[in-house]
Amino acid sequence: MPETTQQQALNQSINTLDEAVKSGRFVRMRRLLSSLHPAETAHLLESLPPKERNVCWPIISPDLHGDVLAYMGDDVRADLLKDMDTADLINATEDLDTDDIADILQDLPEHVMREVLRAMDSQHRRRVEAILAYEEDTAGGLMSTDVTTVRSDITLEVVLRYLRLLGDELPANTDSLYVVDHSDHYIGTLALSQIVSRSRSLTVSKVMSHQIEAITADTPDTDVAHRFEKHDLISAPVVDKDNRLLGRITIDDVVDVIRDEAEHTMLSMAGLGEDEDTFAPIKKSVRRRSLWLGVNLLTAFLAAWVIGLFDTTIEKQVALAILMPIVASMGGVAGSQTLTLVIRSMALGQLNPKNQRWLLRKELAVGALNGIIWAFAIAIVTSLWFKNLELGALIGTAIIINLVAAALAGVTIPIALKRFGIDPALSGGVLLTTVTDVVGFVAFLGFATLFIV
Amino acid sequence: MPETTQQQALNQSINTLDEAVKSGRFVRMRRLLSSLHPAETAHLLESLPPKERNVCWPIISPDLHGDVLAYMGDDVRADLLKDMDTADLINATEDLDTDDIADILQDLPEHVMREVLRAMDSQHRRRVEAILAYEEDTAGGLMSTDVTTVRSDITLEVVLRYLRLLGDELPANTDSLYVVDHSDHYIGTLALSQIVSRSRSLTVSKVMSHQIEAITADTPDTDVAHRFEKHDLISAPVVDKDNRLLGRITIDDVVDVIRDEAEHTMLSMAGLGEDEDTFAPIKKSVRRRSLWLGVNLLTAFLAAWVIGLFDTTIEKQVALAILMPIVASMGGVAGSQTLTLVIRSMALGQLNPKNQRWLLRKELAVGALNGIIWAFAIAIVTSLWFKNLELGALIGTAIIINLVAAALAGVTIPIALKRFGIDPALSGGVLLTTVTDVVGFVAFLGFATLFIV
Repeated sequence: MPETTQQQALNQSINTLDEAVKSGRFVRMRRLLSSLHPAETAHLLESLPPKERNVCWPIISPDLHGDVLAYMGDDVRADLLKDMDTADLINATEDLDTDDIADILQDLPEHVMREVLRAMDSQHRRRVEAILAYEEDTAGGLMSTDVTTVRSDITLEVVLRYLRLLGDELPANTDSLYVVDHSDHYIGTLALSQIVSRSRSLTVSKVMSHQIEAITADTPDTDVAHRFEKHDLISAPVVDKDNRLLGRITIDDVVDVIRDEAEHTMLSMAGLGEDEDTFAPIKKSVRRRSLWLGVNLLTAFLAAWVIGLFDTTIEKQVALAILMPIVASMGGVAGSQTLTLVIRSMALGQLNPKNQRWLLRKELAVGALNGIIWAFAIAIVTSLWFKNLELGALIGTAIIINLVAAALAGVTIPIALKRFGIDPALSGGVLLTTVTDVVGFVAFLGFATLFIV
Repeated sequence: MPETTQQQALNQSINTLDEAVKSGRFVRMRRLLSSLHPAETAHLLESLPPKERNVCWPIISPDLHGDVLAYMGDDVRADLLKDMDTADLINATEDLDTDDIADILQDLPEHVMREVLRAMDSQHRRRVEAILAYEEDTAGGLMSTDVTTVRSDITLEVVLRYLRLLGDELPANTDSLYVVDHSDHYIGTLALSQIVSRSRSLTVSKVMSHQIEAITADTPDTDVAHRFEKHDLISAPVVDKDNRLLGRITIDDVVDVIRDEAEHTMLSMAGLGEDEDTFAPIKKSVRRRSLWLGVNLLTAFLAAWVIGLFDTTIEKQVALAILMPIVASMGGVAGSQTLTLVIRSMALGQLNPKNQRWLLRKELAVGALNGIIWAFAIAIVTSLWFKNLELGALIGTAIIINLVAAALAGVTIPIALKRFGIDPALSGGVLLTTVTDVVGFVAFLGFATLFIV
């Protein structure tokens, strides 16, 4: 992966910024920071260690604070918000879209949030409060309440006149209007591309589309993301359970959900939090990761206890101690391949009771075949290394058993965890290696006790 | 994670389909499959084991084949395409967008691709060939060539009249038109929302935006994705190196890139291919995963060889054999936390020479602190278990050393790999556990040889 030009440009900005911070040339820093797109400023701040981040933040013009915050990850944002006073916050959130304001307010302590809300004009406040009423990870929490609606019985000519009256008031990123009845029930979608390409004398009802189904406000955000992905949507209307239009979700907000969802699995598998900030202070990182190490320690002690059951066997034949990590490690690798695949299929919604059984059979077959292939290789190397054919046969058998157990555990553990409402990405790996460690050690050392020593 | 309603609906479709397949009621299967959105059909097929998939595919009306293929993952699609004859392919791709056609054609053997191209009308063919000229993973490969352009000196009134003439010819998902000069150089973007909300007597040049920079066709697709994410774009123009407009990229295609990129890391870390199909045939899965097990086996033998260096020490004190997996495992877990974090920061473009040093210092501190915390816990348990204070002190020291080594390896390995052009997600994990295994065993068994036995 060669460095991209984007990355190079960013590195240059960081160098300039770094020099400016060191030499205390604040004017230069401000000039650099205000020349960037707010998204780039946010990215730049996220790439800075906390101390330098806190030096740079106050230098950025307060008018830009809101825009920059809107583009930032939750963790870094919460850190910066902590140190802002209420007046700054009110100023920063003034010109933002309602969904971005709601995102920022959700990171604030209750009383500060209420103060910022009180400073808004009543129409604006009502719109933001409508979003805050929903959980952050639902369609309602994702939506923006800045929507433009029309009635179905007017002509496109009238729609065009209305839009021209709105002028700058038409929300950015508008690609379609929503058609509602007199009590705001969602009826259909009128794409701007239809308005401009069809005859002006047609009524809205003739031109609008019913294809885009409205999303109810309590739909989980991952479901929203799947819907957008599947149907290649750009925006979609959000309604309450009575089908009354509440707002709209645009794809730029969904993209964040998609990225977060995919990353969530990867980070969870390493026992890291979803918002894990690479440049978080040491204390925070120690606290977050320590717990995970503790959980792993318990399973490591369990494995050690299992080995301890065979201590007299190991004393007689030290080659067993030398070889036993190989059995455990091969099982762990094979099992985590299956586990990763199953967790991904679950995230993509591809697993169901019918194909689960098929998948289990398949993975068992793959485990057995790979077990046999590598059992031979390991048996040959072991036999030559320790000049002991029996030991070779023993480790080969243990490998096959452990790879089949790994396949079984790799499929059943995540399915069982999900049934109990536990996130398989978070705890699947620990449970899996516990199984492959224990099975590996018991098979290898147990057979050795029975047949060799 | 409770099952979602979407998932439930899909499971129901799958049950119905399964029964229909078993009882051979093809009419029922066809009715069910044609009642779904092509995206849902694609999803359903991806959720089927290969045998059932091949039964269902011919039952789907050939008119829908193209749409369904467009929504499918590369691996499953390539499988289905293999068995289609050229006439079917020509029929299937007829009504698709140029970018979807190009995607499908890229999976075909050269001579079939050429035949399908030959069957198109010349304008259509030229457009598809323009995309095929670029690598699949560049902006050129992502773009659609169905764009609508206007000149800057005409009024919005004229634009509206032109659009109404186009009528249905206006590409789906159009949210803006591109402004070009007489030799097709890109000048700016004219959003439909501007056309409908501004005065009709204004000229395009007064209304268009210069804010959206064109993307050059050879830009890597991950850079395109970052640009879309950062600037919340819905679509963007693609130009050649002389700034001549070639096409446009819409966000629905970028969403796939984002999902693929995020998944790529997770799958690579388990040694799985990017297009890994959960329901791939056994033979394919064995081949793909076997290699990875082989690589892991080499490192496991290396670790075994290291243990073998201390065989006389282990013979004297079998507790060492029992405890040594704990040292290796704690190092592996701590190291993979650091590694995952660094790989993610790289993917997000947050790492640069300045903050790398800061990050290394931080991770070393986190490693040392977590090492000290857990060294105490492990030392206490070990001392009590084996009634041996010295052994406790020994394993504690080894844990601290290994967690610091893990932090060092977790930061430096991915950075070094990237510098050599190797994907850190793919080989980072193997190298890391090699380091933590070797360091862990050498520290623990080495100190034991020196001080205890």
